[in-house]
Amino acid sequence: MPTTPSTGVRKLFEDPNLGHIATLMADGSPQVTPVWVDLAGDRIRINSADGRTKVKNVRRDPRVAISIAAPGGYPSAYVRGHVFALTHEGADEHIDALAKKYMGRVRYPLHRPDQQRVTIVIEPDHASSMMAD
Amino acid sequence: MPTTPSTGVRKLFEDPNLGHIATLMADGSPQVTPVWVDLAGDRIRINSADGRTKVKNVRRDPRVAISIAAPGGYPSAYVRGHVFALTHEGADEHIDALAKKYMGRVRYPLHRPDQQRVTIVIEPDHASSMMAD
Repeated sequence: MPTTPSTGVRKLFEDPNLGHIATLMADGSPQVTPVWVDLAGDRIRINSADGRTKVKNVRRDPRVAISIAAPGGYPSAYVRGHVFALTHEGADEHIDALAKKYMGRVRYPLHRPDQQRVTIVIEPDHASSMMAD
Repeated sequence: MPTTPSTGVRKLFEDPNLGHIATLMADGSPQVTPVWVDLAGDRIRINSADGRTKVKNVRRDPRVAISIAAPGGYPSAYVRGHVFALTHEGADEHIDALAKKYMGRVRYPLHRPDQQRVTIVIEPDHASSMMAD
């Protein structure tokens, strides 16, 4: 059941805070890695590349979770959800937009011709937060 | 197979960087939440309280993962491992030590008599990092 992030949770994802995305390995154990994040409506987007463990993981099992905190650790939020879409389309432009958000760069400086970027769109099913509002 | 964190990974856990710990819900889906962390030798410790989801989760399935990043997101590291011990013993003193590390406070300001603190000791099985060294 999709959930709509609150204003406070949205702000955590809109500000240049790092997300930490958990995915499931083939044996069902968790993996968690830091990622750039942004929002598309009520959905959360990350950007990765074909061949990366987290991409293999979500192709196998779409269940994910994301934790995010402001500098200093407060406020913070954590979301459980599932991969709604995984696409190559627009993924290069998306990593450029994330580079602008997180690095202030017009273009992602680490583009590699041998690397196929992937945008992963996540639908939140459950969101919790620690914040004043 | 336990692994020994590198000097760079150790420093990420020694500095007051927030960890993000992934655990497994009853249905096998991941949960990830921000946590204070420290080291005990080559093991990673977090502190929680009885009744919290992550504590229930690791009592059921000891497989966990932790992601951690310096301010700005670099360097960063991520560890997969398992719960080596889960104990009430010394857990109040441990949360005080974490409050000193993260808040500069002598004592954790949110002690609650109705809350039983728990120290969770994690043995890393696999560690990766993004850093210069």
